[in-house]
Parts: sequence; C-alpha cells; structure tokens
Amino acid sequence: MPPCNRVIERPRSTQQPDGGHRCHLPENHEGCCDEHPALADLRRSAPSVAEKIRRDATRSTGAAWESDNAGANRINRWVMLKSYVAIYRDHGVDVRRWNARVRKRHREKAAAYSDCVQVVRKLAWLAYGMRGAPTPSDRVRVDLENQFGPIGAGTTTCLICARPLSFASFDDATPGKAEIETAHSHPRRHTPDNVGFAHRFCNIAQGDKSLEEFLDWMEATLRIHGRIPR
Amino acid sequence: MPPCNRVIERPRSTQQPDGGHRCHLPENHEGCCDEHPALADLRRSAPSVAEKIRRDATRSTGAAWESDNAGANRINRWVMLKSYVAIYRDHGVDVRRWNARVRKRHREKAAAYSDCVQVVRKLAWLAYGMRGAPTPSDRVRVDLENQFGPIGAGTTTCLICARPLSFASFDDATPGKAEIETAHSHPRRHTPDNVGFAHRFCNIAQGDKSLEEFLDWMEATLRIHGRIPR
Repeated sequence: MPPCNRVIERPRSTQQPDGGHRCHLPENHEGCCDEHPALADLRRSAPSVAEKIRRDATRSTGAAWESDNAGANRINRWVMLKSYVAIYRDHGVDVRRWNARVRKRHREKAAAYSDCVQVVRKLAWLAYGMRGAPTPSDRVRVDLENQFGPIGAGTTTCLICARPLSFASFDDATPGKAEIETAHSHPRRHTPDNVGFAHRFCNIAQGDKSLEEFLDWMEATLRIHGRIPR
Repeated sequence: MPPCNRVIERPRSTQQPDGGHRCHLPENHEGCCDEHPALADLRRSAPSVAEKIRRDATRSTGAAWESDNAGANRINRWVMLKSYVAIYRDHGVDVRRWNARVRKRHREKAAAYSDCVQVVRKLAWLAYGMRGAPTPSDRVRVDLENQFGPIGAGTTTCLICARPLSFASFDDATPGKAEIETAHSHPRRHTPDNVGFAHRFCNIAQGDKSLEEFLDWMEATLRIHGRIPR
C-alpha cells in the first residue's frame, strides 16, 4: 500500500528535508500521522531506544568531542548533501567555519531523507531481534517482517564482532555512553543493508575502516604475531 | 656510575615530584644538569618528538576531549599516586570535582617519577630504532644500548600490530594528531617493559584491553566470522 505521505509539521526544526518530514503510515490510515511508525511501540516501551534509533538514523553525529566545532554535532544527514552555500541559506549553519576534518566527517555521513527513513526501519527490526527485547505489536511486526524477514528472538548480533547483542545493553542510550552504537559495514553508506548495531568497543576499534578492511587487518596482524599460520 | 641526582629547578611547575626533578647525567658530569639526557640529541634534531616523549612519559593524558573536565589533561603521572586531599593541598587541583570516569582514567595512569624517567629512556631507544630515525650521538647511543640492547635501524615496530614504524610518522607530534602514539601492552602499567609506540589507529582500537586480550578478541572474532577455522 502506498504511504500516506502527508507533511508532518515540525515548526521548531530548521533542518527539514526538502518537501518536509512525511508520514509513512499506509494511505488512508486511521489516527494521527507518524513519520516513523516502526518506532510506535518502542516510543512507549523503551523511549530512549526509540529516540536513539531516530537520532542515529537521521543525524550526522552525536560525538561530544565535536562540540568544540560550532555545534557540528546536530546536523541532519540530508542537510550534508547540499552545497555549503545552500546549507547556510536554508539552515543557517556556516560549514565553511568548521575545520577541514570536521567538514569531511560530516560529508561522509550525508544521506538522503528516504534512506534515513529506511535505516530507522532496519534498526527497529534489529532491535526487536535482540535478546531480551520487548515484543512488537502485530502491526509493527508484520510491517517490518514484510521488508526484512522474520524477527528471530535473540538473533541480532554485533555488526562487527558478530556476537549476540542484548537489548539491555542499550542502557539509557545516551550518546557517547551506551554500550550499543549504530555502526556501518562501509562507513560511508547509510542504507539499510549497510547499517547495524555494534558494541561501542567494536565500533570505535573499526574506526574509518570498512568491516572487510578491519577483518583483513586483524587477520594480517594475527599472522605477524604468530597467532595464526603465515 | 651513579647519577648526579641534583635537583633541577623548575619554578613554574606546580606538579613537582616529591624531592623535585632530578639530574640523570652521571655523577661528576661536565656542563649543565639534564633531567632526561637520553633526549639531548632529539631536542635539537627533532624537538617535537623529544617533547612528545617527555610529555607522554610523564603526563597522565593529552586527550583534548578531557578539557571539558577542569583541565584534567595536564596532570603529571606521579601526582595521581597521591590522595585527593594531598593533590589539592600540594598542587591546587581538585580531583573531587572531576566526574567518576575521568578520575578513574587518571588513577589508572598514575606512575612513580622514577618509572616515568625510565619510560623516557625506553621511548627514546625505540624512536632511534625506527626507519628513517636520526642517528644518536655516541654518548646517548651507548647509554641506551647498555640498558636496552643494540639500536637496530628500522627494527622498532608498532606495539600492537607489530608492523614497522617510520620516524616520519611522528609528523608534528601534536597530541591527538600524530600518527604515532605512546601505547601500553597492559594499559595500567607505566614501566619500560610495558610501553612502546603504536599507530594511532591501533592504539584507539585496543581501547582498555591489554594487548593479549585484544589479540584474543581478534582471534575469536575471526573464528566467528569464519575467517579462520573454529
């Protein structure tokens, strides 16, 4: 069924996508519009997790260390697809004042609004597959399973180390503190097939490498250390 | 030969070790006293590297992100061996105002002044063993080789990934920017046998794990990913 697609009013946001935030409930739905219906249950059962998913899927970064650089930690990903001139004109953020490293990091995290919406769905599906996760309503479950396949209890693993993840590890899901972070197999592609959850340790360790590069690096390192045969 | 051991005056420092900074040239040496004679040549040929070695060996951290926490990035390691009361009384630093995480990190980096002096020597010896390193004077070379063995050109490797390190990778040796960082096999022991240089990527990846724990983690991860046989 095509989506409702009505514009959701967000008067406080200065970083709206072109065309505005949209409702992704099915056409002719009952009740209020909802930009991210996949999060409807989590907003009640685990609000900090729902907010973390929305934030990580849509915003370029939440790293505290970037607060030294003109509030660069609160940029929506679709904004970073635009030219610096357009970003300043449309959103009042002067990217040209950031240093080159911060600019580069934000450019790498740019993503279309439609991709961010899909990433929200993928992350919700993965969260429901963690050990100890709450049970979704039938509406949410069927919607997510139609796209990503069955939600198997306890089947979601760390994108990087491939060990099982517990829903409890979200803790309070505060940026820079939660044990679970949103991670990318390839750091520069923000699409559902490339996004997952990872342990904080694993995500920091992977750094700017792709997952394949990181695994290659581990393998070569263990050979040099004599841990596996050359 | 026993060391000169005279106190070196440092009127500007508010974080002197008990008993003061000492001269480590041999007894009855000629010329001026020198706290770190192993750095004498590097101070001329590569001053930023000499300063990096002294800083990393003696100070608890240089991480920019801790500047949010009351200047916690400028504490000498021996200071952190004292009680909070003594630190405030002797050095005017109120550790009790730091948050628990920052306090813990600094406590873990505590080390005796004598160990810091030895770590300076070990790092100087390792720096001279890097590819493209300057040549030390005979005095410095003999002094270091007596303690640590022959300086083999190009034999110094990353403590973590074990690949060769180039002296040129020190770059400007600015904290948080250099490609080479000072690293610890066991993160909480600041002694010559436990300290070395590492790539910035490797040092960040190791995190709070010991080197053995990190290699174990890599091995288990590669098994789970099917990269090496179970």
